[in-house]
Amino acid sequence: MNIHDTTPADTICAISTPPGVGGIAVARISGPDAFEITDRIWKGRRLSQSPSHTAHLGTILNPDGSVLDQAVATIFRAPGSFTGDNVVELSVHGSRFVQRELLRILTAAGCRLASPGEFTRRAFIAGKMDLAEAEAVADVIASDSRAAHRIAISQMRGSYSGKLASMRQRLVDLAALLELELDFSEEDVEFASREKLLEIASQVHNEVRQLARSFSAGKAIKDGIPVAIAGHTNAGKSSLLNALLDDERAIVSDIHGTARDTLEEPRELGDYRIRSIDTAGLRQTTDSIEKQGIERPRQMIDRARIILLVIDPAETPDPDLISHISHSAAEREHPASIVAVVNKSDIHDPQAAIDALTQLLPDSPQVTISAKNHEGIDTLCDILTTIADRENGSADEGILVTNQRHADALNAAADSSQRTIDALHAGLSGDLIALDLRETIHHLATITSEITSTEILTTIFSRFCIGK
Amino acid sequence: MNIHDTTPADTICAISTPPGVGGIAVARISGPDAFEITDRIWKGRRLSQSPSHTAHLGTILNPDGSVLDQAVATIFRAPGSFTGDNVVELSVHGSRFVQRELLRILTAAGCRLASPGEFTRRAFIAGKMDLAEAEAVADVIASDSRAAHRIAISQMRGSYSGKLASMRQRLVDLAALLELELDFSEEDVEFASREKLLEIASQVHNEVRQLARSFSAGKAIKDGIPVAIAGHTNAGKSSLLNALLDDERAIVSDIHGTARDTLEEPRELGDYRIRSIDTAGLRQTTDSIEKQGIERPRQMIDRARIILLVIDPAETPDPDLISHISHSAAEREHPASIVAVVNKSDIHDPQAAIDALTQLLPDSPQVTISAKNHEGIDTLCDILTTIADRENGSADEGILVTNQRHADALNAAADSSQRTIDALHAGLSGDLIALDLRETIHHLATITSEITSTEILTTIFSRFCIGK
Repeated sequence: MNIHDTTPADTICAISTPPGVGGIAVARISGPDAFEITDRIWKGRRLSQSPSHTAHLGTILNPDGSVLDQAVATIFRAPGSFTGDNVVELSVHGSRFVQRELLRILTAAGCRLASPGEFTRRAFIAGKMDLAEAEAVADVIASDSRAAHRIAISQMRGSYSGKLASMRQRLVDLAALLELELDFSEEDVEFASREKLLEIASQVHNEVRQLARSFSAGKAIKDGIPVAIAGHTNAGKSSLLNALLDDERAIVSDIHGTARDTLEEPRELGDYRIRSIDTAGLRQTTDSIEKQGIERPRQMIDRARIILLVIDPAETPDPDLISHISHSAAEREHPASIVAVVNKSDIHDPQAAIDALTQLLPDSPQVTISAKNHEGIDTLCDILTTIADRENGSADEGILVTNQRHADALNAAADSSQRTIDALHAGLSGDLIALDLRETIHHLATITSEITSTEILTTIFSRFCIGK
Repeated sequence: MNIHDTTPADTICAISTPPGVGGIAVARISGPDAFEITDRIWKGRRLSQSPSHTAHLGTILNPDGSVLDQAVATIFRAPGSFTGDNVVELSVHGSRFVQRELLRILTAAGCRLASPGEFTRRAFIAGKMDLAEAEAVADVIASDSRAAHRIAISQMRGSYSGKLASMRQRLVDLAALLELELDFSEEDVEFASREKLLEIASQVHNEVRQLARSFSAGKAIKDGIPVAIAGHTNAGKSSLLNALLDDERAIVSDIHGTARDTLEEPRELGDYRIRSIDTAGLRQTTDSIEKQGIERPRQMIDRARIILLVIDPAETPDPDLISHISHSAAEREHPASIVAVVNKSDIHDPQAAIDALTQLLPDSPQVTISAKNHEGIDTLCDILTTIADRENGSADEGILVTNQRHADALNAAADSSQRTIDALHAGLSGDLIALDLRETIHHLATITSEITSTEILTTIFSRFCIGK
């Protein structure tokens, strides 16, 4: 089935503005009968006879003929609308009652309530945008930092799709050459030099691999960069979390082991969002409850992109702890950053700790702070921003993958393109090479295009909000 | 100062849709430079050169030239807009980031952030609506029941203003006649028969008085009808509240005096909202904490429109309590309704209690329920709806006053029109009568019109939400 052939048979409606009370709310109606259905509840200029992209003042009528509300109806005629179908946007007073009643009246007049993401799904089906662009619409709506927004807008506007198309086109050309060879196989010609093929395949493979790798940074920027606050008990981790959040959300106490639970708190940091994770103190303990608390901090450290190692200068930095954290940070495909934070500068001389850390973590930036007095926090935030900029800048042509589905497809494409390269090295025959090439092309195509199953589409769009 | 002369000098902007995240959000820009300012951040068709009531797809640009968002701009040219000024509505993706940034960009381009209600205030100043209609806009937005919405929409569309105008006109005609007489006073003519004057003045006075009285019902319907649940401790008041709310919000216990605090819980009841008030048990007590709890229930009963008197059939109905409640309900200008509720029908024979209540409260409806088993609750709700219908129907021509400012003005107008009637009865001279008439006219005019001070306007519109 070519899904682009599927003309929507019914007309859907939803409130597209945020839930709640406001000055105005907007109901969106999309489908072949959008104008006729709205005209049934509308007193004012006939929308079915109005030109596209015009706005009209009128009243919305209850079934008994009384006035539900005064409203402005803006109409968009197919195909010049977001969904590609006839669309009416009704701007009404933003009361809960009006919003609820309007949907009731619209459904009574012949609309169906839209499911989450159904307007964008229709835009995709109408060929208004490819699948990656449609998914980016949801990311734009969910973005709450400048960096996450910039990635989503760029993807929505097709920069990512363009990059994928370029890679796919080069592979399609390769495959076409190989298949041409096969057609003339009895004549033993070689249309494509194996060196040239290898060069192009390697180039595309590297680009695919780099995109796939960018998912780690892309996900961190989209969801908030996970920052783990690690260190021995009583090093002042909760105080640092509070200082970072400018708030008293973690319980601070002088008793060892107070912060047994982990706290994830989002915070804006320049163009980014960070999620600070306060981990329970990492110390040897026989306390069984605290032991349970210890297992989770280790996991938190393992999934952080930045680890703040908090040191109390009154104690000697613990080489075992530091080695554990260094190992955890380095062993991933995309290593995490460690920042050495010497705390309690208000009551202790930090020099010994600084010297020890310079030995133990020669590559990590250091900062001396007093979390309690909020000293050195700005410097720490600058260091965090620099690291976040580096994550963000790791992108190829500014493109970061932010979507698990895309990352999976890219990893599959990287695997099959690796097989293509291996096959070329091994001097395998053109038909085998072409098979792997076709597989890579397929994986790349699933990211943007129409070969996606209805089931996958349903999963993708169910993550949207209603009304978009 | 005639405030209608005040052309707004600056251009304001706000997000007009509810706060939060949604498919789309709408920013409204209103003022003389709305088109020029928006054009500075807009890539697409020049809005300053586009016709009124047209919608345009384009992109919103950040100051650095990058794209903030794709958007639809709908433009309304003065005077054909809500505010009467040039208006742009920008429909953008409803992320927090886009909404916040858009306001930042707009203010950087020359807009000022709108204060609450400032768009509607400008509509009033431009003569697009009178003051009562403008106030009703806020009521429409706040309405969350059909009855409250119906009153607000009717007021916003001018039915109430029309009623006020009719009363005022009749008084203005009277005053004009009396003043004409004064001009010819040396000739001792009487243009207006005193009987005719008295008839008109009494008519208007009665209408004003009735409107003023409707505030009690109007306020109840607008804010939710306050229903007090009264009765001796352990009669099952909290269980009844739970049954009404279909939820376990009040703590139910078999120990006397558990529900020491009052709970106000809104609930929809057909076209209305009711606010159920659970009052602590009304029994003699020496417990000092409970005594404090007792004072408040008495006040709750005093401000309820409907009092549910809950009786445990195992106990003899207490004539003192019933007399207290009857007195409280009857002594107001607009008497409250009492419903006798015989509870615990699952464990006791209710007949004795029913008979006693028929004696003690002959005019009140009765219902037998088991709050615990949720039996009889539907019947009780029907009774409540009937009473609410009666409150709603107490309106003159369907008009209920819902606004304290209006009620105050109407009460003042009723007082001065009473003085007019007294003066006519006493045969006082035309100039004195005209003075009182002018005062009544003034009070009625403050409800709708331009003689209101800037300070009062500021108070009125500060209660609006931003963006309207």
